[in-house]
Amino acid sequence: MKKIDGWLTAPQGFVAAGVTAGLKVSGKPDLAMVFSKVPAACGAVFTQNKMCAAPVLVDREVNKNDYARAIVANSGCANACTGLKGLADAREMQSYTAGLLNINVNDVFVCSTGVIGAFMPMDKIRKGIKIATEQLSIDGGKNCAEAVQTTDTFIKHSVYEAEIGGKKITVAGIAKGAGMIHPNMATMLTFLTTDAAVTPVLLKRMVKSAADKSFNMVVVDGDTSTNDSMIVLANGMAGNDLITDEKHPDYQAFYDLLLAVAVDLAKMIAHDGEGATKYLEVNVVGAKNFAEAKIAAMAIAKSPLVKTAFFGEDPNWGRIVCAAGYSGAEMIAEKVNLSIGGIRLVENGLNCNVSLEKLKPIMAEKEISMAIDLAAGDAKATVWTCDFSYEYVKINGEYHT
Amino acid sequence: MKKIDGWLTAPQGFVAAGVTAGLKVSGKPDLAMVFSKVPAACGAVFTQNKMCAAPVLVDREVNKNDYARAIVANSGCANACTGLKGLADAREMQSYTAGLLNINVNDVFVCSTGVIGAFMPMDKIRKGIKIATEQLSIDGGKNCAEAVQTTDTFIKHSVYEAEIGGKKITVAGIAKGAGMIHPNMATMLTFLTTDAAVTPVLLKRMVKSAADKSFNMVVVDGDTSTNDSMIVLANGMAGNDLITDEKHPDYQAFYDLLLAVAVDLAKMIAHDGEGATKYLEVNVVGAKNFAEAKIAAMAIAKSPLVKTAFFGEDPNWGRIVCAAGYSGAEMIAEKVNLSIGGIRLVENGLNCNVSLEKLKPIMAEKEISMAIDLAAGDAKATVWTCDFSYEYVKINGEYHT
Repeated sequence: MKKIDGWLTAPQGFVAAGVTAGLKVSGKPDLAMVFSKVPAACGAVFTQNKMCAAPVLVDREVNKNDYARAIVANSGCANACTGLKGLADAREMQSYTAGLLNINVNDVFVCSTGVIGAFMPMDKIRKGIKIATEQLSIDGGKNCAEAVQTTDTFIKHSVYEAEIGGKKITVAGIAKGAGMIHPNMATMLTFLTTDAAVTPVLLKRMVKSAADKSFNMVVVDGDTSTNDSMIVLANGMAGNDLITDEKHPDYQAFYDLLLAVAVDLAKMIAHDGEGATKYLEVNVVGAKNFAEAKIAAMAIAKSPLVKTAFFGEDPNWGRIVCAAGYSGAEMIAEKVNLSIGGIRLVENGLNCNVSLEKLKPIMAEKEISMAIDLAAGDAKATVWTCDFSYEYVKINGEYHT
Repeated sequence: MKKIDGWLTAPQGFVAAGVTAGLKVSGKPDLAMVFSKVPAACGAVFTQNKMCAAPVLVDREVNKNDYARAIVANSGCANACTGLKGLADAREMQSYTAGLLNINVNDVFVCSTGVIGAFMPMDKIRKGIKIATEQLSIDGGKNCAEAVQTTDTFIKHSVYEAEIGGKKITVAGIAKGAGMIHPNMATMLTFLTTDAAVTPVLLKRMVKSAADKSFNMVVVDGDTSTNDSMIVLANGMAGNDLITDEKHPDYQAFYDLLLAVAVDLAKMIAHDGEGATKYLEVNVVGAKNFAEAKIAAMAIAKSPLVKTAFFGEDPNWGRIVCAAGYSGAEMIAEKVNLSIGGIRLVENGLNCNVSLEKLKPIMAEKEISMAIDLAAGDAKATVWTCDFSYEYVKINGEYHT
């Protein structure tokens, strides 16, 4: 398995486009499209927010099918809290795209991201879809990724390839997401393409599992969006032996490839958390079970006190053990160990009195990992997050409705 | 029932003191003491954080008794994550105070607040306790309240009195708390004194109930401290007929008095949230039950996206319904209603398109209430919180260990 440069069009048989429909005041690209030349097995997971957006309602229906062909997405308007009109707009976005691409309506996934509560400017959407279908090409991958960004500061993409069963298989992915990031299935918008041949039923299971190990382990601000979607299209053009179940000899290699792309994108989302100045990796070990390890890691990663301490480059370990303490995870207080950047700060629940001089260079790093041992079992979990800065407050105090 | 000016010494039979022991670099008062001239029924609730501080371990034992006489508290050092030595220090603080006051060791509650992980400077603590016992007086209430502050910007105190069963009964309270505020029983440090005669068993139940309706409905940053404690002393000097159970004719009047003080202090804590520029009241109605109403209100009140929007004076109602949506509370998305400052912004899940001009003066207020109807039942809950500002990041990025 190796990482290569590229976009959603790196796997065989995919074309893409990203155009300016005019939803963003900035004039930046805001309508993205991906298209598979042949029917692709599809698998997707969506937000569990009860106020989910109209496109999510549409996509849940699409995902009941085995195969799909296209994803159309806009940024600038979330089409959430828009009622029946919003649902009609999402369906029109879907059917208009299907008509121009000459495919079935149910072959099109629809995604939106942006401000909640506003209706879609359908004339602009239609115009954008028209131009995008005309511009679909193997070179359109970068534009496509650009067109789903909102407050992102860099474009998140990742491509891995491997020889599996004698065939070269490629998995490519893009993601958007900087705010409203909290795991509750797929997080934010992320699209993956692959030329692997895999059955739809198996792919759906693999997508769920990969989401749990990647995007669901990222937290920026604890807010679960109304629009989170992870959609994977697998068109089989690599010509590999069809992967049918978990016992297939090529299953693990393909799963590893899929997970590598998903984890890569998930970490990029943490790196690009709104206002982030530092990327933080929270490792919990010694938990009673995985669920408790994740609960403790999430409590630490979500704590505004922990996040602002890292922003201030303050090795305030008390806030970290405090967050683990209130998380609800079982722990033995007098056996807790804690390290930051590999330096042991707490041993058996007690301060190791490491000098601030020794910690200063570690706290000044842009990427910092911490590990806490709860001394309650053998399970572990890692959550990726970022610090909490003035810039976060600025971005979210000023990103007006 | 009327609100009066005063401190913990307003009820009969209490004296107090607040002195500088030298734990705070600033030289401000950092050791507080309250003393009842006669044994007082005691009731208390404490943090549920598994990494709870040494004084909490000591106080849980004290609270198993019916009566107590004194509370001694220091600010500047939390005595948390300090192991067996910390526990010995807390016990010494307790026994040293008891010795000087000539009372039983188990008559003394001990509290600490400040930095986690450092050992108590016991020479300073002893010196402070010595001076405090000498300075105990009816005029010491204000100093006592000052000595438990950390990042607080104003002193929180509240006193109510009422004639109950022909006797004047007074309840007084002080609280500290600005950061690490999240309900999980009692929140932060709060001490209440009263001259009411009430049985210890009943008082303990009343304190738990009052905490659930006051301090447990406040959230600043979602972090539950290692040291949270609410302690109530009732010395009976008002001479009222002993209140023995919930059916006693004076029960409700006394409960209302206790709750009035607790709610007053709880709201003050939200007003004084670290870096707060606005006080926010989150009302959830139409929930399936109280637990779900509270879950939804807490999700809204804790959301960094909601809190920064209010800081930016942006009526971003999408973030409010989004937070309710991911809270886990049942809701009917297409029937949700939402108001801010009494103006309806969302009706039946749809944007009411209220002009920004109309909302501008409301969003500029220093105290803003919002109400969301989940359309899933008849239960309701109110949570008090504050916005999230640059100052929060500054305070917590720079409050170094």
